[in-house]
Amino acid sequence: MKKSEFTKLMIPGPVEVDPQVLAAMSRPVEPHYGPEWVNKLERVNNLLKQVFQTQNEIFLMAGSGSCAIDASIGSSLQTGEKIIIGNNGFFGDRLVSIAEHNGIEVAEVKQEWGKKLDTQKILNMLKAHPDAKAVAVVHSETSTTVLNPIDEIGLQLKDKNVLFIVDAVSSLGGVPVQVDDWGIDLCASASQKCLGGIPGLAPIAVSSKAWQLIDRTHENKHGWFTDLRVWRKYAQEWGSWHPTPITISSNVVNGLLVALEMLIDEGIEKRMERFRRLALSLRKGLHELELKPFTPDEELNPVLTAAYSPAGVDSGEIVTYLNEAHHIQISGGLGFLKPKIFRVGHMSPVINLKDIQNLLSALKDFQRQTT
Amino acid sequence: MKKSEFTKLMIPGPVEVDPQVLAAMSRPVEPHYGPEWVNKLERVNNLLKQVFQTQNEIFLMAGSGSCAIDASIGSSLQTGEKIIIGNNGFFGDRLVSIAEHNGIEVAEVKQEWGKKLDTQKILNMLKAHPDAKAVAVVHSETSTTVLNPIDEIGLQLKDKNVLFIVDAVSSLGGVPVQVDDWGIDLCASASQKCLGGIPGLAPIAVSSKAWQLIDRTHENKHGWFTDLRVWRKYAQEWGSWHPTPITISSNVVNGLLVALEMLIDEGIEKRMERFRRLALSLRKGLHELELKPFTPDEELNPVLTAAYSPAGVDSGEIVTYLNEAHHIQISGGLGFLKPKIFRVGHMSPVINLKDIQNLLSALKDFQRQTT
Repeated sequence: MKKSEFTKLMIPGPVEVDPQVLAAMSRPVEPHYGPEWVNKLERVNNLLKQVFQTQNEIFLMAGSGSCAIDASIGSSLQTGEKIIIGNNGFFGDRLVSIAEHNGIEVAEVKQEWGKKLDTQKILNMLKAHPDAKAVAVVHSETSTTVLNPIDEIGLQLKDKNVLFIVDAVSSLGGVPVQVDDWGIDLCASASQKCLGGIPGLAPIAVSSKAWQLIDRTHENKHGWFTDLRVWRKYAQEWGSWHPTPITISSNVVNGLLVALEMLIDEGIEKRMERFRRLALSLRKGLHELELKPFTPDEELNPVLTAAYSPAGVDSGEIVTYLNEAHHIQISGGLGFLKPKIFRVGHMSPVINLKDIQNLLSALKDFQRQTT
Repeated sequence: MKKSEFTKLMIPGPVEVDPQVLAAMSRPVEPHYGPEWVNKLERVNNLLKQVFQTQNEIFLMAGSGSCAIDASIGSSLQTGEKIIIGNNGFFGDRLVSIAEHNGIEVAEVKQEWGKKLDTQKILNMLKAHPDAKAVAVVHSETSTTVLNPIDEIGLQLKDKNVLFIVDAVSSLGGVPVQVDDWGIDLCASASQKCLGGIPGLAPIAVSSKAWQLIDRTHENKHGWFTDLRVWRKYAQEWGSWHPTPITISSNVVNGLLVALEMLIDEGIEKRMERFRRLALSLRKGLHELELKPFTPDEELNPVLTAAYSPAGVDSGEIVTYLNEAHHIQISGGLGFLKPKIFRVGHMSPVINLKDIQNLLSALKDFQRQTT
């Protein structure tokens, strides 16, 4: 066995998956069409509806979370139109980049990395740009562990004439995401984070309000693969036989199905509470080691934790030490935070309190050997 | 075990993969970054260069073959520009659709389904549309099993001021594709056909001539995920640590790596010859059963064979019978050919002569029980 097979994966995704997921993945390849397959994909989509807490239509795209966000923004807005983007991290920057790659004008509500987005500032921006067609924000900003208030923003936007687009890549399945109650028109996620699958799939929940914009007569010219109309066309016209426009990876879908069944069996609330306890326990331990969490305790992210590296220590050293000496893999920071913070993902269904304790004692060892 | 696990998969992709590929796939999830991962992805890309027979840069995209084609067309041509598309099947239609979804004007060289594209007609179309920026064709038209003469077309276009874009989804690894010698500027394929991997990945070989068009000052607005500039930016700027813009599916890459190593170990020529012998043997058997192949014997497709359904028999009946009575899964036709032909894929590295014989005796059984 290689070293990597012994390493405990505690990065902010992809996550370590349950052995049952790997077993489902490694069954012989099956076709991405036919009645059995259609039933299976329907089961996946119905389970996803429960996790998204929605009655909206689900599309299970291939690719990645960013691909699903590209599809959400690029399908609903046309070149030259305007979007308001709340941006307080690396994946906020990505939302901006995705919009710009679709020729969409961005009115940016910038917030310091590490601080939550301010709902009022977004509403003010909307007043200043009443022609904006959508507001987009990241829910769990993986680069900083900040959880943005998508509930508050969503409720404020519900009666407004804009779409609400949410990047729920690192939150869905681990942090409440109430698509219908909070009026999220396009909610995009990915298979390899809290859902507990392997990378390669990206579900999107699409509201009827979103379809109204997507269906405007003047057609978008933002490509084929990320056009939600293409995905809907296959779901509708070929749905009883070949429900996706492409050869979706049946093995990866099989893995996701098992992961979703395990999530629903455990109970979404229970799973979230379990993650929350891991987060609390990790924070408690970090405080004991005098390693300051990057976000305040009252703004707990149940699936991700970041802490400052001790003064004078590049967080990369911690990452390397934990990997080499303790076979635990965590992450450094992203962007300008790269050397300043380290990040721990505890969004895997197989991570438990013992793993958190092992991580904390590895951090203690690091401190010991550097002082 | 479920029925599907006993079924011999002989559809035109995805293919049955070697158990070693499944084993590689089912190893614990590993991160899509870091020095070990960078080395691994480089190995994959170097093996792909051998298969593509190219020195051009390779990008291993996530998604599907059609996604890679969308990226090829959408990245290099701008909205309002013109492309010439040779179209003689379902996937030729898809090329047209992909171009149109990018707002690109299509000059179509149509050819009857089942007949090869005529190089001269493509050159005539280029004379009539000297402003065309590219010519795109499908190599192995999976819907009809026709192999289009991409060698001939490529050699004719080499000194012309157009890009040559090839859909090599169902040919690469099973039929010679000489990217450099034939002047293919953008050659897109997929993991789950002749390469012997599972679905989810789509390699593209990109020439420097293609980059000249991609890099024109006026930026394309065809989205983010399928923009080759985004993929190059990560390969160049983040290449030593995080070479892809997204979380690529490490498990699927691990499977593809094993599949590619097996292909190179066997020898590309030998593998192709092996497929060719299967194709010849299948055709011989079909003639003996008086089941007429859909394309002439002298236009053999080594990885795919289609035959007419007997008069008065919907090919769907054959497909169902083989599946239920013999646990062999083949395909019907696509589009208007749906009930008229059945299609057999023999592009899996694990398919052998015995499987072809079993298929032929199953077809014989079908004939027996229907007469």
